[in-house]
Amino acid sequence: MHRITAAVAPPSPDGRGKDAEFAASVTEVLDHFFASRDGELSRLGDVYVNAVRELRSFVLRGGKRIRPTFAWLGWLGAGGDETGSQADSVLRACAAWEFIQACALIHDDVMDASCTRRGEPSVHTRFADVHRRASWRNDPAKFGESVAILLGDLALCWADDLFHEAGLRSDQVARATHVWSAMRTELIGGQLLDVVGEASADESMETAIRIDRYKTAAYTVEQPLHFGAALAGADPRQIRAFRAFGRDIGVAFQLRDDLLGVFGDPAVTGKPVGDDLRQGKRTVLLAVALRTADAENPSAAGLLRDKIGTELSDNDIADLREAVHELGAADDIEARIDVLRQGAFSALDAAPIDPGIRDRLHGMAWSATRRSL
Amino acid sequence: MHRITAAVAPPSPDGRGKDAEFAASVTEVLDHFFASRDGELSRLGDVYVNAVRELRSFVLRGGKRIRPTFAWLGWLGAGGDETGSQADSVLRACAAWEFIQACALIHDDVMDASCTRRGEPSVHTRFADVHRRASWRNDPAKFGESVAILLGDLALCWADDLFHEAGLRSDQVARATHVWSAMRTELIGGQLLDVVGEASADESMETAIRIDRYKTAAYTVEQPLHFGAALAGADPRQIRAFRAFGRDIGVAFQLRDDLLGVFGDPAVTGKPVGDDLRQGKRTVLLAVALRTADAENPSAAGLLRDKIGTELSDNDIADLREAVHELGAADDIEARIDVLRQGAFSALDAAPIDPGIRDRLHGMAWSATRRSL
Repeated sequence: MHRITAAVAPPSPDGRGKDAEFAASVTEVLDHFFASRDGELSRLGDVYVNAVRELRSFVLRGGKRIRPTFAWLGWLGAGGDETGSQADSVLRACAAWEFIQACALIHDDVMDASCTRRGEPSVHTRFADVHRRASWRNDPAKFGESVAILLGDLALCWADDLFHEAGLRSDQVARATHVWSAMRTELIGGQLLDVVGEASADESMETAIRIDRYKTAAYTVEQPLHFGAALAGADPRQIRAFRAFGRDIGVAFQLRDDLLGVFGDPAVTGKPVGDDLRQGKRTVLLAVALRTADAENPSAAGLLRDKIGTELSDNDIADLREAVHELGAADDIEARIDVLRQGAFSALDAAPIDPGIRDRLHGMAWSATRRSL
Repeated sequence: MHRITAAVAPPSPDGRGKDAEFAASVTEVLDHFFASRDGELSRLGDVYVNAVRELRSFVLRGGKRIRPTFAWLGWLGAGGDETGSQADSVLRACAAWEFIQACALIHDDVMDASCTRRGEPSVHTRFADVHRRASWRNDPAKFGESVAILLGDLALCWADDLFHEAGLRSDQVARATHVWSAMRTELIGGQLLDVVGEASADESMETAIRIDRYKTAAYTVEQPLHFGAALAGADPRQIRAFRAFGRDIGVAFQLRDDLLGVFGDPAVTGKPVGDDLRQGKRTVLLAVALRTADAENPSAAGLLRDKIGTELSDNDIADLREAVHELGAADDIEARIDVLRQGAFSALDAAPIDPGIRDRLHGMAWSATRRSL
């Protein structure tokens, strides 16, 4: 009980400092990786060099390195030694997750026709602009999408290259390969469920939960932790604890993201206001709202079904936010997040995991799932 | 001299029989690989299972297995033993190239908005139809493209999985990984040059040759041969010979494809008549035609520049074919193909490569580059 109480306190400044330091090391590894490809790209000419420069800046400016950090903490938590001879190789393997993430975001933005990402024009938008400025032939949007598809493909290939060139021992590769391969198959499956759910306007809670689980949760926390733990040769109890913790925190993280997608401040999310509503994302938040509306408030149900996933004015967005809020859906999701976080901490705290690392995981979990004020 | 003469004779029936047998083994490996993913896919539900069924049928009905075959011949030619204990692992690693090819074709068809592939609806077209039949929300075409992007991504990941799960020895993986990784970076680069060349209506011979080299030539013959040879632990002379042969035959193969793209019979190519002309592909054939037209026939040059890459009627196609032919561009390309083939055979014949395999390579090279009557 003591631990659970401690866990909901904000993370220690020490843990945050270490996380920032680690994120900087990941960026450095990625930068070196890009440099290692210079010769190969130059042989194909400036067109390729310049396009990959955009990929580089996208990857290097990318966020909090949350997946590499979880992988690293999985390794440390299961006995990895950050001053040992294996640390550099493990760091590189962890950094490889950022290339998976780059592909996922770049292709996702093409599929969702999202114009912005991390508060800047998305990759396909950038290349559509290049086409427009040069007054090239045919459709600028189609051109932008094509280049983005190819750069996403490249990121996916480079994820593998970085993993396999990391300098890991063959027993480490053998243990981690299964996690790596399952992660990619499940991530793509989760995205597919998302695309199909949106097109078919699937309202089921089951679909929404499954999308959360596979598109984000598994891939953001559970699998990175497992990957790192596998590199360290973790025992089954440690792996089970990491997976249970990761599953719950991952889903909680996605639920937080669902709330931000509807109620978030564009200055914080880097996305337009109410973006998920415009797009018709099939979130658990929406499934909860619809279920309550069907039971209690048919006119709210009608509003949600008529409007969500269409062109929305700012007034429409405000009405929809109000309706979702009044149906109690946001409170329901907050309560789910709390339950998941508590479950996650219990799983972690019961397992033989390095206590310092456990604290850092508490901190990470906390900052990924707390209300942003 | 004797050998070169022999080489331009049609391939032996024996070699063709072995190639067909090998292609069937590749299909079997791919089928097993799909089966190995059943459990994983089922966990995500029927939507994923059904989508991957389309990928499976696309991959299994796929063509002549030309890349796996070159890889296999590279291995045998450098001393691999097809009755030895390594043969199954090498076969699996060779089959992995078909997943790269699946991704390349599926994503290419999205980028080119091609409706057909191998005489059937392309993957994105198929899923647009699913959307249309179900009367789902939003744009069917966009939905089809999204699913095709994801299935292409999956094929790219599975290429790696199959390579790394093939059961190769670690020294083999170490030698082949560099070829595998360079192949993917260069293939994506070649496709990028193609997309940019088309948009910018780049007329230079240099660009056209570079696209041929990287988008098709290297990836179809040179790199598969090198990959197979690396698995066998080939010596540098063998690798140099395979690469020289592969480079020339690969470019010759692409030049043949350029001719088919303009003059080919849709029943043979599986593509609409004059498809490259409609699409404005920047081929060497077109670069030659434009260069000659600029020097000798300004009205033909005007016709080519006005029409290529626009909506074309059947009469326009006939006029353009006539113009390209009268400018001597087709003959020029035929002559280049002959020179490349002779160079390729000389390189191969001078190197210490198993004579039986050399004959099969002659046969492969011949059928990939000869006039189809």
